[in-house]
Amino acid sequence: MSAPPLLPKHLYGVLGWPLAQSLSPLLHNTAFQALGMDSVYLRWEIAPEKLSAFVESVRILPISGCSVTIPHKVAIVPFLDRISRQATLAGAVNTLYWEGETLCGDNTDVSGFLAPLCHMPLQDMSVLLLGAGGAARAAAAGLQLRGCRQVWICTPSDKSHLSLAEEFGFTPLLWADRHRVQANLLINTTPLGMRGKHEGVSPYDFSLSSWESRGAVAYDIVYNPLTTRFLCDAGAAGLHCISGLEMFYGQASAQFQLWTGLLFPTVVRQELEKALGCGPAKK
Amino acid sequence: MSAPPLLPKHLYGVLGWPLAQSLSPLLHNTAFQALGMDSVYLRWEIAPEKLSAFVESVRILPISGCSVTIPHKVAIVPFLDRISRQATLAGAVNTLYWEGETLCGDNTDVSGFLAPLCHMPLQDMSVLLLGAGGAARAAAAGLQLRGCRQVWICTPSDKSHLSLAEEFGFTPLLWADRHRVQANLLINTTPLGMRGKHEGVSPYDFSLSSWESRGAVAYDIVYNPLTTRFLCDAGAAGLHCISGLEMFYGQASAQFQLWTGLLFPTVVRQELEKALGCGPAKK
Repeated sequence: MSAPPLLPKHLYGVLGWPLAQSLSPLLHNTAFQALGMDSVYLRWEIAPEKLSAFVESVRILPISGCSVTIPHKVAIVPFLDRISRQATLAGAVNTLYWEGETLCGDNTDVSGFLAPLCHMPLQDMSVLLLGAGGAARAAAAGLQLRGCRQVWICTPSDKSHLSLAEEFGFTPLLWADRHRVQANLLINTTPLGMRGKHEGVSPYDFSLSSWESRGAVAYDIVYNPLTTRFLCDAGAAGLHCISGLEMFYGQASAQFQLWTGLLFPTVVRQELEKALGCGPAKK
Repeated sequence: MSAPPLLPKHLYGVLGWPLAQSLSPLLHNTAFQALGMDSVYLRWEIAPEKLSAFVESVRILPISGCSVTIPHKVAIVPFLDRISRQATLAGAVNTLYWEGETLCGDNTDVSGFLAPLCHMPLQDMSVLLLGAGGAARAAAAGLQLRGCRQVWICTPSDKSHLSLAEEFGFTPLLWADRHRVQANLLINTTPLGMRGKHEGVSPYDFSLSSWESRGAVAYDIVYNPLTTRFLCDAGAAGLHCISGLEMFYGQASAQFQLWTGLLFPTVVRQELEKALGCGPAKK
């Protein structure tokens, strides 16, 4: 006898444009299937001019939950009924969910960013934040929520870090001066190191740092490739390394919990590591 | 090792209001899963005032195909880009599908109705059609497409058969006179016999028929219960019986072919028979 067919009832998905290689469908569908839940997770490539109609579709069908990615994270805010504190702080929404009849927006990038830092005394650490885009903003929100008091911020290409610095009380820095500050948490949120034209490039040269970085922490938001030049060099310089897998897994895990009240089963992390080409977990 | 997770890409579903006990999700999901297709089929209960917004959702997401049932089959027509000949004849749409960028409406109730009659010389048969609702209209369209020339039509409760008779060139009949005409195909499209308040009732009394019905065919559109009083009595009177399962299976099978180009795998019929509480097929 074959198993009875799964009859899906609840619809989830990821909203973006384009949606080249999102791993979110893999994570959430693996969880739904492992837990025997009657839910499915699709991908929706929606152009910016159709965003309003898409949110209307979320209300009509209804769609039970939605991951939101570029370029809709900020633009979607006015179409929602309520925004969480984390989403307000981050100025962006990466998750739609329902509270009764109320369509809410949250930002689980913030808790995803914080997940691998949960045992660290952030309030007493000094942070160098590289980059000032959407991921930097989620990191900034997370650092603020955890009471982090010393954060330097700089960007390689423009002055977008100035407004972020002002908003969160961070210290702006020239890109050229980034090796001069003594931080014990280095966070890369720039695209430097990402597969494509920036692959193999690092946003930081550990040979130029004028301080003893041994014992510090390097955190890369980039997860494709998983081992970036930044993390390689940081590891060689004696830093503790956190890969982009942690934040990506953390934000997805927080979405799943928001939607279902459940934790990801362990097979989800295994599938993610397999997809990113890691061996068995090395932790 | 567990199987790799299914990552659904194509979304289908049934649109109705309410959608109490639709078996369509069972049929289509069984087919998708048996064929290893990355598609899922959901149920959407949409109130009449939200129909226009629903069709907009079909366009936005997009939804790859949709079964349409009561009360939307007629109301949905103005929102579509193109209507098939069968849907035009039946005056109703039970299937949405795409031809490129064009959102089309078809009526597979018509081919579903004809499926179990495909080997019969309908053009030479005389038909008694009981009922004049949506299913009767699909049957009428099918009979016309197959060149059937002698059709009597009557209804138990009103005069709605008169317009159908005029439109399709059928002969209207008083309900009280239905036992007097010599038909060799009797079709019940009334709710008489259906589970609920009409269960156990038959729209025809074979003991009153003034002609030799042996060798004729009785076709019941009702499939819940599968063995109606009408078919029981018809079988006892020597008629060949066709249950409502055939039309229901036929319309779903035609939808699946329209959407995927593929036939239902055999397991679909087995699942349907299991759900309707039949034993193994008796054909």
